[in-house]
Amino acid sequence: MPPRFAFTVAATDGAARTGTLALRRGTIRTPAFMPVGTAATVKAMRPAEVAEAGADIILGNTYHLMLRPTAERIARLGGLHRFMGWTGPILTDSGGYQVMSLGALTKVTEDGVTFASHRDGSRHAVSPERSIEIQRLLGSDIVMAFDELVALPASRDAVEAAMARSMRWARRSRDAFDGGGDHAANAAIFGIQQGGLDRDLRAESAAALRDIGFDGYAIGGLAVGEGQDAMFGVLDHAAGQLPADAPRYLMGVGKPDDIVGAVLRGVDMFDCVLPTRSGRTGQAFTRRGQLNLRNAKHVDDDAPLDAECPCPVCATASRAYLSHLVRSDEILGAMLMTEHNIWFYQTLMADLRAAIASGRMKAFAAAFVARYRGRA
Amino acid sequence: MPPRFAFTVAATDGAARTGTLALRRGTIRTPAFMPVGTAATVKAMRPAEVAEAGADIILGNTYHLMLRPTAERIARLGGLHRFMGWTGPILTDSGGYQVMSLGALTKVTEDGVTFASHRDGSRHAVSPERSIEIQRLLGSDIVMAFDELVALPASRDAVEAAMARSMRWARRSRDAFDGGGDHAANAAIFGIQQGGLDRDLRAESAAALRDIGFDGYAIGGLAVGEGQDAMFGVLDHAAGQLPADAPRYLMGVGKPDDIVGAVLRGVDMFDCVLPTRSGRTGQAFTRRGQLNLRNAKHVDDDAPLDAECPCPVCATASRAYLSHLVRSDEILGAMLMTEHNIWFYQTLMADLRAAIASGRMKAFAAAFVARYRGRA
Repeated sequence: MPPRFAFTVAATDGAARTGTLALRRGTIRTPAFMPVGTAATVKAMRPAEVAEAGADIILGNTYHLMLRPTAERIARLGGLHRFMGWTGPILTDSGGYQVMSLGALTKVTEDGVTFASHRDGSRHAVSPERSIEIQRLLGSDIVMAFDELVALPASRDAVEAAMARSMRWARRSRDAFDGGGDHAANAAIFGIQQGGLDRDLRAESAAALRDIGFDGYAIGGLAVGEGQDAMFGVLDHAAGQLPADAPRYLMGVGKPDDIVGAVLRGVDMFDCVLPTRSGRTGQAFTRRGQLNLRNAKHVDDDAPLDAECPCPVCATASRAYLSHLVRSDEILGAMLMTEHNIWFYQTLMADLRAAIASGRMKAFAAAFVARYRGRA
Repeated sequence: MPPRFAFTVAATDGAARTGTLALRRGTIRTPAFMPVGTAATVKAMRPAEVAEAGADIILGNTYHLMLRPTAERIARLGGLHRFMGWTGPILTDSGGYQVMSLGALTKVTEDGVTFASHRDGSRHAVSPERSIEIQRLLGSDIVMAFDELVALPASRDAVEAAMARSMRWARRSRDAFDGGGDHAANAAIFGIQQGGLDRDLRAESAAALRDIGFDGYAIGGLAVGEGQDAMFGVLDHAAGQLPADAPRYLMGVGKPDDIVGAVLRGVDMFDCVLPTRSGRTGQAFTRRGQLNLRNAKHVDDDAPLDAECPCPVCATASRAYLSHLVRSDEILGAMLMTEHNIWFYQTLMADLRAAIASGRMKAFAAAFVARYRGRA
């Protein structure tokens, strides 16, 4: 039987590292990008297409799934993997972030959060215990602790209070996970560091998480509008604050150059809706930056999106054709643009892994970012 | 080099027949169903997925393509096959039907039709000559003559006048096609029988088309609300009126039981938006009739759409999952439902071909229709 959880660093290059994270349902090559499978689907992609693009793991959203089709229904139908036809590992978020960003009439107490569904106004409650129960019902391979978020900018007191509560909730999440029987014996749980942009609060949060002990450690509360410099500022210290022998997961990040900078600073895992959401709005990622396929300049362009891209879309479809599909609001436009973008992200992760393994991470990062930003 | 056009009947069973239609770009097994690739895409499917489902040929719409991205642009980009990445044969309609059903402020004269785009109100003109030119610019393998349609019910005089004009336009279409140089040497052209539900007008139309001479013969002006009995009434005579050694194409048909009845009556080719359009609205075709996946009764059903279906969707996705996707308006729902429906239609055509080849068409048709209509 594959291990429950085994993180192996095969090579380091500065703070960057590459290796593998082995789980019961499969092995994840790190640094890894996890496509977001919001409502039991990576939008506009079949599971086999996600795997072919190079993704070893996807993310499922507790908030969306608890509302529809509900965790209990998914459990009755054999769990999320069987329900959606994805056989590899799935990481589920705790629902906390989306409860606070999508839910309405949200009320937070020490016990947990109550909110109204953004869809039909029905009221729901999530606590650390309920979040872990939902993630267990889904059959998650990597469960996330339930935490409280504050929107930045916020006062230091507000950031500190939310961080402190998140650490108490992290303890309750860990206990709830450990009481999960079979599921706990076959899955993993990550804690989430909070503390905004404050180095001391971040250190305090990391210490609290290490005291509890988790399989992996997420860096939360970033990519919420603070800007890349501020985010990198936090990451400059996060690697040192979190255990070296556990994976570090930067939640909700990000743009390709955000990912490159975070890998340079020791991050191992990422998730973001950008490649899928951008695909549905006609935005393509390329080695020379983003393209807007709605732009009239592409309508007669017989070139592929990115001449260096190994994806099936770039092998067959011209910018002119994709532009036609996107401008005509054709579903195939969303399908092909999403597929290309996920391949772009997964190819970037493979390039990062290779660069770290061969000790040329800094040069790769500099060249990639310069070209991506149009300066090379 | 494959033949320009070679229609071979391998077996007959009553009026039904099975065989092949060989063209430069590939061979079509008949009876054949052509998925509709409206705007240079079979909606929600990649070309490879359409081919894997068993389709040998697809249909492209002159009306949509002339408006966007325009035939001239597609020609500059190497033709419709290259533009959309479909390497097999493509039949293009003449635009006549959609000009009259989708265009606004339509004016019909002996020269042709002028109309306003349903999209932006811009005015356009199509004549037999222009329709053939557009189809040549697209690189069509089977070009359709440009005809005039009347909505049924209509007076006999109105039906007769439109039929007579369509026959004059058929002559002009043939001449325009023949003047097309290289394209005429590598493509085929079909005439379209008109005459509403009137047997004599249908006979007169067929005679006019035979006089001109076409590679194949379409039966037009049906499936416009006249009902299945009336349509079958026309088809009972159409096979005898049209040449036996040329393919017969029933335009815009239809439901699975329409197709079975038409094949029984000697039809070789079909096209219809039903499987694709239904896929996007949550309707699935099965051997026991249609299912509406928005219906709450499917949300806990772990069974596939159709237990006998060989398609990739039925191999992996439950009705519960598809119902979740459809109810959540997920693009993957449209993708999987469309894929299943196209497989259902192509599997039906394969079953029809096998039934004819083995002399059991009548029994197959009776059993299929009884089960499809819920009487077996």
